[in-house]
Amino acid sequence: MKEYIQGELLRTIANPQDVKRLEQNKLPKLCNELRDYIISVLSENSGHLASSLGAVELCVALHYVFDVPRDTLIWDVGHQAYAHKILTGRRDSFPSIRSFQGISGFPRRDESPYDCFGTGHASTSISASLGMAIADALQNDKTQEHQHIAVIGDGSMTGGMAFEALNHAGTSNANLLVILNDNGIAIDKSAGSLSSYLTQITASAKYNRIKNKVWNMLGGNTLAYAKHKTLMKKWLTAFKYVFSGKSTFFEALNVRYFGPINGNDTEDLIKTLRKLMHIKGAKILHIITVKGKGMPMAEQNPTTYHSPGLFNAKTGEIEQTNTAAECPPKYQEVFGETIIELAERDKRVIGITPAMLSGCSLDKMMKRFPERTFDVGIAEEHAVTLAAGMAARGSVPFCNIYSTFMQRAFDQIIHDVCLQNLHLVLCLDRAGLVGADGATHHGAFDLAYLRLIPNITVAAPYNEMELRNMMLTALETDTPFAIRYPRGEGSNVLWHNDMELIPIGRGVCLDDSNGKAKIAVLFLGTVGLNAQKAAEILRNEGIDIALYNYRFLKPLDTTLTDEIFTKYNKIITLEDGVISGGFGSAIAEYATEKGFNGNIVRLGLPDSFVQHGSISQLQHLCGIDCDSIAERIRQMLQ
Amino acid sequence: MKEYIQGELLRTIANPQDVKRLEQNKLPKLCNELRDYIISVLSENSGHLASSLGAVELCVALHYVFDVPRDTLIWDVGHQAYAHKILTGRRDSFPSIRSFQGISGFPRRDESPYDCFGTGHASTSISASLGMAIADALQNDKTQEHQHIAVIGDGSMTGGMAFEALNHAGTSNANLLVILNDNGIAIDKSAGSLSSYLTQITASAKYNRIKNKVWNMLGGNTLAYAKHKTLMKKWLTAFKYVFSGKSTFFEALNVRYFGPINGNDTEDLIKTLRKLMHIKGAKILHIITVKGKGMPMAEQNPTTYHSPGLFNAKTGEIEQTNTAAECPPKYQEVFGETIIELAERDKRVIGITPAMLSGCSLDKMMKRFPERTFDVGIAEEHAVTLAAGMAARGSVPFCNIYSTFMQRAFDQIIHDVCLQNLHLVLCLDRAGLVGADGATHHGAFDLAYLRLIPNITVAAPYNEMELRNMMLTALETDTPFAIRYPRGEGSNVLWHNDMELIPIGRGVCLDDSNGKAKIAVLFLGTVGLNAQKAAEILRNEGIDIALYNYRFLKPLDTTLTDEIFTKYNKIITLEDGVISGGFGSAIAEYATEKGFNGNIVRLGLPDSFVQHGSISQLQHLCGIDCDSIAERIRQMLQ
Repeated sequence: MKEYIQGELLRTIANPQDVKRLEQNKLPKLCNELRDYIISVLSENSGHLASSLGAVELCVALHYVFDVPRDTLIWDVGHQAYAHKILTGRRDSFPSIRSFQGISGFPRRDESPYDCFGTGHASTSISASLGMAIADALQNDKTQEHQHIAVIGDGSMTGGMAFEALNHAGTSNANLLVILNDNGIAIDKSAGSLSSYLTQITASAKYNRIKNKVWNMLGGNTLAYAKHKTLMKKWLTAFKYVFSGKSTFFEALNVRYFGPINGNDTEDLIKTLRKLMHIKGAKILHIITVKGKGMPMAEQNPTTYHSPGLFNAKTGEIEQTNTAAECPPKYQEVFGETIIELAERDKRVIGITPAMLSGCSLDKMMKRFPERTFDVGIAEEHAVTLAAGMAARGSVPFCNIYSTFMQRAFDQIIHDVCLQNLHLVLCLDRAGLVGADGATHHGAFDLAYLRLIPNITVAAPYNEMELRNMMLTALETDTPFAIRYPRGEGSNVLWHNDMELIPIGRGVCLDDSNGKAKIAVLFLGTVGLNAQKAAEILRNEGIDIALYNYRFLKPLDTTLTDEIFTKYNKIITLEDGVISGGFGSAIAEYATEKGFNGNIVRLGLPDSFVQHGSISQLQHLCGIDCDSIAERIRQMLQ
Repeated sequence: MKEYIQGELLRTIANPQDVKRLEQNKLPKLCNELRDYIISVLSENSGHLASSLGAVELCVALHYVFDVPRDTLIWDVGHQAYAHKILTGRRDSFPSIRSFQGISGFPRRDESPYDCFGTGHASTSISASLGMAIADALQNDKTQEHQHIAVIGDGSMTGGMAFEALNHAGTSNANLLVILNDNGIAIDKSAGSLSSYLTQITASAKYNRIKNKVWNMLGGNTLAYAKHKTLMKKWLTAFKYVFSGKSTFFEALNVRYFGPINGNDTEDLIKTLRKLMHIKGAKILHIITVKGKGMPMAEQNPTTYHSPGLFNAKTGEIEQTNTAAECPPKYQEVFGETIIELAERDKRVIGITPAMLSGCSLDKMMKRFPERTFDVGIAEEHAVTLAAGMAARGSVPFCNIYSTFMQRAFDQIIHDVCLQNLHLVLCLDRAGLVGADGATHHGAFDLAYLRLIPNITVAAPYNEMELRNMMLTALETDTPFAIRYPRGEGSNVLWHNDMELIPIGRGVCLDDSNGKAKIAVLFLGTVGLNAQKAAEILRNEGIDIALYNYRFLKPLDTTLTDEIFTKYNKIITLEDGVISGGFGSAIAEYATEKGFNGNIVRLGLPDSFVQHGSISQLQHLCGIDCDSIAERIRQMLQ
């Protein structure tokens, strides 16, 4: 493994105890070394750069002051926690991050006792921390006073469950410390009024005016602090009063508010955290950090450097890949271009994203049709019901949510969209295996969880042109329509077809080897490419197979299936979603209904959580790559 | 149909235009007549009483001032909207409410154009109203100034998606009017710090001191209002300033706050609404209402009278049913008693409910173990992740959520519980058909949406004793465990068995007719009783069937299934959940895997939304009552 830059201090840090042993004035140097190490590793292994750079001081300060996992520490979303991983026994394995069988890009309980709670999806940390605080309080001797820390970004704070948790926390006397890591950025610029509110607080003249005065006061009282309870109480009141420049939002929820302070200054952080660790009950510390801190290009372009891919560690310049015209486009690009075409044709079209504006390529529509494009912040539930409201008034919103995050809006899809049979389009980006982001981010369940819902049409394109045709078809129908498509590149350079309508619920035979095939592969979505490759491999061995592109999971093409049941007695179903309840399950249900007596093998993701790695590694692991498919077919024919 | 009390004014009201024609001083009388009518109908047809009584004035005032559906009106949850139904063309059909083929207990778009958006689950109204406001603004001439009104209770306001919607609304200039109907009660007393905050506002001396002064001021300027823009601006500033006794929570989100005002006074309401209809952008009006208004017993016991069943219209006395010792208990009672027994044995046990404390019978545990029982407010997402946090620290929370509402926590079950394989117990109350509450409330999807998740055990008891055994088993295992059980009464008077462990993933043969059976019915859950009754019917006809109680959907008992596949070539699967993806689907998947060549018929809920009615009517409709099952068996044997 390549040598990456580990500074002299960092080389002495095996775990948080080693951090605690350092003199406090050494910590800024440790932070710089952490940053250099993160930059050097990520320049050659893609990962979440800018968030992690911004949280280095916070991470060092937390481990300096608190005693994790005695105190619990949860990183919301978790992609800002790279320094935490490096400081907690994973310094030398850090270069394996996000690679197959390497460490995860997110905190994981099964990876380290210092990862108190696994994260990946946003806005969970306050609920989980409060749960830990309550459980500890019930179980432990009351003299033990752990703190339970949730570090949550201003983007994640807009997720509804964060609010639900604060509403509960305000009535609890549990030792919860919420650290609001405010950098004004989710991935794109944070959306919503809470974000503006936080900016107002930070900009307030009052805060700037009194800041120095307060720090002086703090320093003077530190020693007296623990000894004199009356003094402490007075001091705390003053501390709270002076710091609470504008804290009314959180204090209305009965959560004591402190801040804002500079979250990229270890001294400021440690001073404040040491005070807060003795304050019981629910409290929030608002810190201001710079996303991309310490790397000028990342500071200036935090969205670009959120997860920049490979880059030059010295200059920060990002390696350009696939810009040549002869390369196939990303599915995201196809979506982004196509929705603009549809919006130009049809005024009813609206674009909605919950905080993934550039990720799903709605940024282009935002430029072209700003009044018809909405980034609602991290708020999947709201996004779907907002779309339902629009649909009820005759608009046709295309609500684009990553497959794994659409799970958050499951009830809204059932209750607000499908029960009312409203015409809108759910676009599930990053469906199927997503690769390096791993278990929390695979779009593994969407086929199964959408199939069980009445009234919805569920489509999965086989290629870029089919995605475009499905988007047009979705616009021209009048009932709920879901389209799921994968992360990353397609397979066609000439993808910009004239869109045409597809008959809903109809699949097609791609190739039946002129009737010579003895086995049929029925597939859904882009994973069909692997079946096509398997067919080529087998053709060279003299084995002919038939390929059926179902295009729709729901309604299932029963006419086509009847025909297949008549022609073949060996069938493979192929999908890149869980096999419990998905496409293969639909075929199995229909097979039992029709009394099909042949052999059906269902290929798809297993009934277990798939970890991280490259998509091809993971497809192989799950037996849905071309070689595995070919091998299964050989076995079936024996 | 019985005659119910329709007062003289009410008899003249066919639609909202008739309300508008009334002189304003007649409205209190209309409100009284509405209340009398609601009470007289509900005394003989169970329904949501107390909420609807509290919202009568609001409903009259809204239809007096606004022009629905030109202005849109959404009732959050919707069970407070009975007066709305009566005033909008459904006066005479109102006695059919919640009965089979009668009008629904909730707003439904397909029932009336005045029901702008269907509701049933909480906290959706702000999102949907905002969507309507945005869509209308995009589509319409800018001179048209509709208002888009969401009426939301203080209980529903704690649901995360309401916050997500407010966060978005604060950045929008759409004409959104949120009416916060604050009665301090969800079903039980509202939980959480927001509720306390609202109470503080209401109690504030400032509000009481200035109230009269303000009303005088308002009256004086009403006529000048529309004509003089400068004056209007000044006036609005004053109006806002004076009314904002303590509005910082909402104003932090950039949503203008007005109130609180008396929501049971039509004059106050109409005055205020007339001002607000000319104010653009997002705004919130906080009204204070009395749940159960006008019926003393309901005012005093709003929780009891939320949905009291049948009662004496004159005295308010509730008809007592099933209190005799010889009656089987409700499943809720079994759960409520059993969790206390478990909590007594084992200190790790914690009870959690999102706002259904009495509904799920955790109220008893709250009395016995207040420190280990948590009502977190309407916040299903938070409830599940809170439980996950507790589980990560060694507690064993039993998180009780109605099946239909558990859909809200789908992502949390996957991401926070099952991915981490945490040991906690999800108790899905009101699984299967719930009867009169209808489509929004049936627990139709849980089997299908839980089956697709790795690591979870999914159990469904056949009777009360099995529920108790499953709860014990869930406590003693170490992985995620879900138990789903129905609303209402069980079948055993002597239900209080000594609990015993059940082998996880093992079903049992209840009866194989001594080997004479030619057909096997495989069932999951209490719907198996219908199969048992069908068996009795058929036995009298000389037809023998075998009955298998699977007990677990996941892991599926493959040993038992192998045995059944060997013995029978005719199989019926029976469940009271959707057949797409559920128990029958699991059997179908396994049958194709094993090459079972017999005949399988899957009985369950259809792939469509089931409406309201009695459970037996709906079971018949879905073909899962005993007669339908018997008939299916006869057909299969022909």
